[in-house]
Amino acid sequence: MAHIAVIHGPNLDLLGTREPSLYGTTTLEQIDERIRTEASPHEVKTFQSNGEGAIIDFLREVSGWADGIIINAGAYTHTSYAIRDALSAAAIPAVEVHLTNVHAREEFRRLSVIAPACLGQIAGFGWHSYVLGLEALLEHIG
Amino acid sequence: MAHIAVIHGPNLDLLGTREPSLYGTTTLEQIDERIRTEASPHEVKTFQSNGEGAIIDFLREVSGWADGIIINAGAYTHTSYAIRDALSAAAIPAVEVHLTNVHAREEFRRLSVIAPACLGQIAGFGWHSYVLGLEALLEHIG
Amino acid sequence: MAHIAVIHGPNLDLLGTREPSLYGTTTLEQIDERIRTEASPHEVKTFQSNGEGAIIDFLREVSGWADGIIINAGAYTHTSYAIRDALSAAAIPAVEVHLTNVHAREEFRRLSVIAPACLGQIAGFGWHSYVLGLEALLEHIG
Amino acid sequence: MAHIAVIHGPNLDLLGTREPSLYGTTTLEQIDERIRTEASPHEVKTFQSNGEGAIIDFLREVSGWADGIIINAGAYTHTSYAIRDALSAAAIPAVEVHLTNVHAREEFRRLSVIAPACLGQIAGFGWHSYVLGLEALLEHIG
Amino acid sequence: MAHIAVIHGPNLDLLGTREPSLYGTTTLEQIDERIRTEASPHEVKTFQSNGEGAIIDFLREVSGWADGIIINAGAYTHTSYAIRDALSAAAIPAVEVHLTNVHAREEFRRLSVIAPACLGQIAGFGWHSYVLGLEALLEHIG
Amino acid sequence: MAHIAVIHGPNLDLLGTREPSLYGTTTLEQIDERIRTEASPHEVKTFQSNGEGAIIDFLREVSGWADGIIINAGAYTHTSYAIRDALSAAAIPAVEVHLTNVHAREEFRRLSVIAPACLGQIAGFGWHSYVLGLEALLEHIG
Amino acid sequence: MAHIAVIHGPNLDLLGTREPSLYGTTTLEQIDERIRTEASPHEVKTFQSNGEGAIIDFLREVSGWADGIIINAGAYTHTSYAIRDALSAAAIPAVEVHLTNVHAREEFRRLSVIAPACLGQIAGFGWHSYVLGLEALLEHIG
Amino acid sequence: MAHIAVIHGPNLDLLGTREPSLYGTTTLEQIDERIRTEASPHEVKTFQSNGEGAIIDFLREVSGWADGIIINAGAYTHTSYAIRDALSAAAIPAVEVHLTNVHAREEFRRLSVIAPACLGQIAGFGWHSYVLGLEALLEHIG
Amino acid sequence: MAHIAVIHGPNLDLLGTREPSLYGTTTLEQIDERIRTEASPHEVKTFQSNGEGAIIDFLREVSGWADGIIINAGAYTHTSYAIRDALSAAAIPAVEVHLTNVHAREEFRRLSVIAPACLGQIAGFGWHSYVLGLEALLEHIG
Amino acid sequence: MAHIAVIHGPNLDLLGTREPSLYGTTTLEQIDERIRTEASPHEVKTFQSNGEGAIIDFLREVSGWADGIIINAGAYTHTSYAIRDALSAAAIPAVEVHLTNVHAREEFRRLSVIAPACLGQIAGFGWHSYVLGLEALLEHIG
Amino acid sequence: MAHIAVIHGPNLDLLGTREPSLYGTTTLEQIDERIRTEASPHEVKTFQSNGEGAIIDFLREVSGWADGIIINAGAYTHTSYAIRDALSAAAIPAVEVHLTNVHAREEFRRLSVIAPACLGQIAGFGWHSYVLGLEALLEHIG
Amino acid sequence: MAHIAVIHGPNLDLLGTREPSLYGTTTLEQIDERIRTEASPHEVKTFQSNGEGAIIDFLREVSGWADGIIINAGAYTHTSYAIRDALSAAAIPAVEVHLTNVHAREEFRRLSVIAPACLGQIAGFGWHSYVLGLEALLEHIG
Repeated sequence: MAHIAVIHGPNLDLLGTREPSLYGTTTLEQIDERIRTEASPHEVKTFQSNGEGAIIDFLREVSGWADGIIINAGAYTHTSYAIRDALSAAAIPAVEVHLTNVHAREEFRRLSVIAPACLGQIAGFGWHSYVLGLEALLEHIG
Repeated sequence: MAHIAVIHGPNLDLLGTREPSLYGTTTLEQIDERIRTEASPHEVKTFQSNGEGAIIDFLREVSGWADGIIINAGAYTHTSYAIRDALSAAAIPAVEVHLTNVHAREEFRRLSVIAPACLGQIAGFGWHSYVLGLEALLEHIG
Repeated sequence: MAHIAVIHGPNLDLLGTREPSLYGTTTLEQIDERIRTEASPHEVKTFQSNGEGAIIDFLREVSGWADGIIINAGAYTHTSYAIRDALSAAAIPAVEVHLTNVHAREEFRRLSVIAPACLGQIAGFGWHSYVLGLEALLEHIG
Repeated sequence: MAHIAVIHGPNLDLLGTREPSLYGTTTLEQIDERIRTEASPHEVKTFQSNGEGAIIDFLREVSGWADGIIINAGAYTHTSYAIRDALSAAAIPAVEVHLTNVHAREEFRRLSVIAPACLGQIAGFGWHSYVLGLEALLEHIG
Repeated sequence: MAHIAVIHGPNLDLLGTREPSLYGTTTLEQIDERIRTEASPHEVKTFQSNGEGAIIDFLREVSGWADGIIINAGAYTHTSYAIRDALSAAAIPAVEVHLTNVHAREEFRRLSVIAPACLGQIAGFGWHSYVLGLEALLEHIG
Repeated sequence: MAHIAVIHGPNLDLLGTREPSLYGTTTLEQIDERIRTEASPHEVKTFQSNGEGAIIDFLREVSGWADGIIINAGAYTHTSYAIRDALSAAAIPAVEVHLTNVHAREEFRRLSVIAPACLGQIAGFGWHSYVLGLEALLEHIG
Repeated sequence: MAHIAVIHGPNLDLLGTREPSLYGTTTLEQIDERIRTEASPHEVKTFQSNGEGAIIDFLREVSGWADGIIINAGAYTHTSYAIRDALSAAAIPAVEVHLTNVHAREEFRRLSVIAPACLGQIAGFGWHSYVLGLEALLEHIG
Repeated sequence: MAHIAVIHGPNLDLLGTREPSLYGTTTLEQIDERIRTEASPHEVKTFQSNGEGAIIDFLREVSGWADGIIINAGAYTHTSYAIRDALSAAAIPAVEVHLTNVHAREEFRRLSVIAPACLGQIAGFGWHSYVLGLEALLEHIG
Repeated sequence: MAHIAVIHGPNLDLLGTREPSLYGTTTLEQIDERIRTEASPHEVKTFQSNGEGAIIDFLREVSGWADGIIINAGAYTHTSYAIRDALSAAAIPAVEVHLTNVHAREEFRRLSVIAPACLGQIAGFGWHSYVLGLEALLEHIG
Repeated sequence: MAHIAVIHGPNLDLLGTREPSLYGTTTLEQIDERIRTEASPHEVKTFQSNGEGAIIDFLREVSGWADGIIINAGAYTHTSYAIRDALSAAAIPAVEVHLTNVHAREEFRRLSVIAPACLGQIAGFGWHSYVLGLEALLEHIG
Repeated sequence: MAHIAVIHGPNLDLLGTREPSLYGTTTLEQIDERIRTEASPHEVKTFQSNGEGAIIDFLREVSGWADGIIINAGAYTHTSYAIRDALSAAAIPAVEVHLTNVHAREEFRRLSVIAPACLGQIAGFGWHSYVLGLEALLEHIG
Repeated sequence: MAHIAVIHGPNLDLLGTREPSLYGTTTLEQIDERIRTEASPHEVKTFQSNGEGAIIDFLREVSGWADGIIINAGAYTHTSYAIRDALSAAAIPAVEVHLTNVHAREEFRRLSVIAPACLGQIAGFGWHSYVLGLEALLEHIG
């Protein structure tokens, strides 16, 4: 049985109400619930924070427990070398996910500075990106 | 009667003592007091934090209450796509203010990444920038 | 009693008819009228020209008379080092105003080359930007 | 019967004598004459100026009269956001023409900042570029 | 029952033998077989070509038949505006997949010029990227 | 009597059905027919291919026959130094045409790498761009 | 007797376990201990946080107490204009230290945005960088 | 006897009063007088304008008369391709002069776009730059 | 006895007639003949194509046979990451040759994107570049 | 007992007289003396040259003798790939030192091209930078 | 009586024979002779070297003697921050001269990195540039 | 009988001992010997220096004697416009050689600023690059 940590970055607590034409109507609670169902019988810890430091702190906390990480770092994806370093330091397989196709939006969203510390990236499939990320992760840590 | 949230970003707690030749001798408390007086009878909530995440959290808290936002994001103005996303998500009219004329200082201060989520920008008039911002906001939500 | 010169750059003579969804329906005459009312009892001279040289000539003409300048240099904002030099040479407090939030539009509109010769910048509040600029200017030269 | 305004920008008054190996030996008067002939029975007003502001003024003058515009903005093509804004404001179909193939010359001539306010561009066919531009314009406003 | 077209771009015919430490030991035939199994009972057409034009031709051929596209454009991902235009023209939901985490490799591999014409992108999970892409596609066209 | 070769690059076979709001409803066959009519009594050979190499091959084939070339290289316009070299090598007068005003679209469409090997460029007039190109070419080789 | 504040930025809590081949096997506690020993009889306060805001808060707290600052801002070194502003505001001599030779690693690590607010920089000597920084600081505030 | 045209661009009418620590206390009239004295017995026509178009018009006027040109294009030096084209078209030897050492000031002042149409450049010697320019010109057309 | 594959990219079929002042008067057949003579008794297969995909296909075909590759990728040298990947995948020693000194021509010709997959590069010696490339290759595979 | 070579690059012979507000009043001889004292009983050879080649020659001379190098390459720090190659070739531990905080000065001084061939960098502490560099070096070669 | 040092950088020893169409037929000896004549009764020392270090050494040697410097740093003009630092350190008025109009040649010749350490620049008048430079210098040190 | 000058730039004196995995184990003496043997009966002068100026001096010395030049400018290849000017001035056919494939190494090694003054370039074949360069040169001056 694997331990999976799921990290949601800034503004993802607003899912379901935030610009629904762009981000969909599913809430973060529903996504977390869905991940748990899909992951079963594996164990899942979910976490959301708007703070860069808090995300790094959480990575520290789960680093002895988790076998894999799913991370949607939100806007920090494009600027946070600190989260990238934290992922490298954790040395746990991580999958980067995004609700929208970041490669088809504003210029600044096309670059992920955390990508070099991740296995791979899944972007553009709404909440389903998380489910695909889970699947990819489980396959990897098989 | 309108509800106005006023957000002061990093290092603004130091106003009055921090490099007074650049930022003036008025303290943050005096600015907040002044804004309240000017805004009367509208209601004002003020908030200062050095943390990017805390600013986003505050935006979340006031998002059901506020009719308008005045934000001086300090140095986060130039780097925080997360605050920009939070402002877009809040979907409340926001005015960006700066004490100094950021367009006449270092190169990096000329670009505001939060501007696309704001009504407009007022920069260069010391604590008076806040008063002008309040006026612009009230006119808009009038 | 202060003397205020108000300068409107290229295409601002079209206000009220030019792309009203972007620039509003108030005409330049109405804005000038409004500025005069707000400025009373201070004296106001207004000027509009589509010519870069004519704007510099006007700056020369009012340089012995004016105590403050409000300038909306239109598209010259982004390219005219000559107007910037003219403002520096005039050595009169100047406030830069824009009808739209130039920081939220095309890339080229985000940079103001005249900003280093101004006190500050107000952008995004339609004709109200001029009124706020007047207020900021009077406060400054107070 | 359509009304066509033809605008020639800086240095085009020199046609026929200016670097003929590059720009040909036809004079501006001959081009204007030719356009008139080709346009018949449509009405044509032609204008040449070396001044950016004067070109914008002319656009203002003909904006109630003209059904279409042919513009060779000369070197202003590459720098004048003010002319671009004037064309957008005029909201009249405009065709951009150039005597030489600007895309095969110096780097700075490859970018047209006025293009986004035009229907299309014709470059490289000497005075014939104007005739082709007229034809394209008449077809469009047909 | 859906019709799925799977496109493999340049050099993917070498899978299994080409730099196995980077791309794995599974052959293209095995991947195609695996996709067919996973897709059942949906119908799958697979195609590999080293030619940019041939990929566009194939897109044309399947454009009346396919309900969804999975495309690994290989190195053309980073340069082919022609394939991007072809995907836009086809107007069929498409998922972009990559065997490796292109965002963690050479600079030039971080930019996908075809992304704006796709639903989303999955990168970094070896042959499993295709399976995840299939799943994402079926969910979408579901 | 002149010999004219008309080259249509990638995705132009889709004309009439591909994003008609952008590219119009005229088909490629209709354009070819129209060019033939306009060109009469001159002889016209038309060619469409999605392949960069095939376009170069065609240039080779017609290089002894053609007196002039009309080329819409589609997306290859912006990347194909090989087609540019082929046009230079052919040493036949060539006119570059585009259906849309490429200078008013995405950044990458503003640069034509084949322009230095052409007489001139006509962009933005739908299928009429070809007719204007033909006219420009005939005038030149007149 | 001087008061020295030592600030460790994001991920430095992991020292000793995080990528030891890169960062060494000494723990943060051991470094803090070592600094205290070297600094004796001067007084030392140490602080570690993964949060940008928390580091600024700490700078605020010690700004009346400290005579000098040693700061290893970790990945925030390269992006945090807010920490730079906080250091400028504090107006206390500060020395920037790094465990690794940041100038010999990835491109983004070569630029320190906090450097303009520091006396100097010491990079590349593992935990010894702190000791050298202490020595440099004491020499300066001598 | 040679005919020399001297052109002073934007803001040079202010010489003697404009930022004297930077530009000196000599007035434009004094400079013109000095040039005339130095040039004697050659004939000199001087001209100042703040307008880009007016400078081009003047070049046109003197193009049949002048044997040489001395031009200080002020801030237009850095942006006016139109003046450069006018100088090329005039085909008269021209010397570019600047009061200050433009190569030691702001970045944007280091590039002269008119230089390719001039014999040479003299910068940094106050009003003496004109005298040196005159000398260089007379030597050349000698 | 070694097996050598010689690949000529786009437009090289025109050698001898294409811009002879730049590329010389030797035909491709003569070059191939010369390579064969020089290579004797080693076996040589030569190939020319204007198609990027066809070049990759050929690399695939000879990948079991060839001991070394000589490649002049023509204009694809500067853009084709696909050919670079194909060379890396082939894992056969390859020498890059150019007829002209690409480092002394247009900017875009100075960068070879295929170089990282080759042993070395020889440029600027006309058809003799191939002979030198052969010699270098034979020395290497010795 | 270790052998330490100390290299001073261009203009460092002027120390003590050159811009003392920036570089201090200590002479190079005094610095050398101080290093010798601090290094005792280790042996020190010092060298100053304004020539790039002479510095490389000196590196060659001491390469069999030295156990460590302290180098202040002056302005060559920012441009000399040759010195960097020489340091790499020498394969002796080297510490890069600077008198001033190069990261807080002009843009061009922020990049050290020799850094990748050094252990670390110490900048900003005047002549004390050398002493700290010596200490770091001795610790390393300990 | 003033002391003037004249410095000729790399390749200037070749004057008179080196590309005479570009650099003229006057030899360096003739230029030096001419400068001496023009400077009389002031004293002149001339120096030519192809070595960057040697030029700095010479600056050191004459720094107690010279009242002014004329420097043509040749190609080092564009790259040598070391010579710039040497000129700043010398703190003697210096005039930068060039034989050709460097602003009208290759891109890299347009930037002078030594300009910020000079009074002004004279470029484009062949050997006469030196004479003009001498005159400018004498006027300055008057 | 031809006269050939062979120039080895900075750090090449270390060949055989310097990073042998990168540069091979052949010494410079052996390379010179080999070149002499291959060149026989032509006469060869070889020269190595770490100094940019010394290389230019040597070019001057041999400019009346040499019929051809082989130059490996080492790291100066990428920065020395002075050597490039010296080669242009010498006007003797020159071949640029490199031991390693500079196009497959660090970014800065991909650009040769001396290339425009050379016939061609040979890179990547160890000491054999010199032999190939000799052969190319002899063929050219044949």
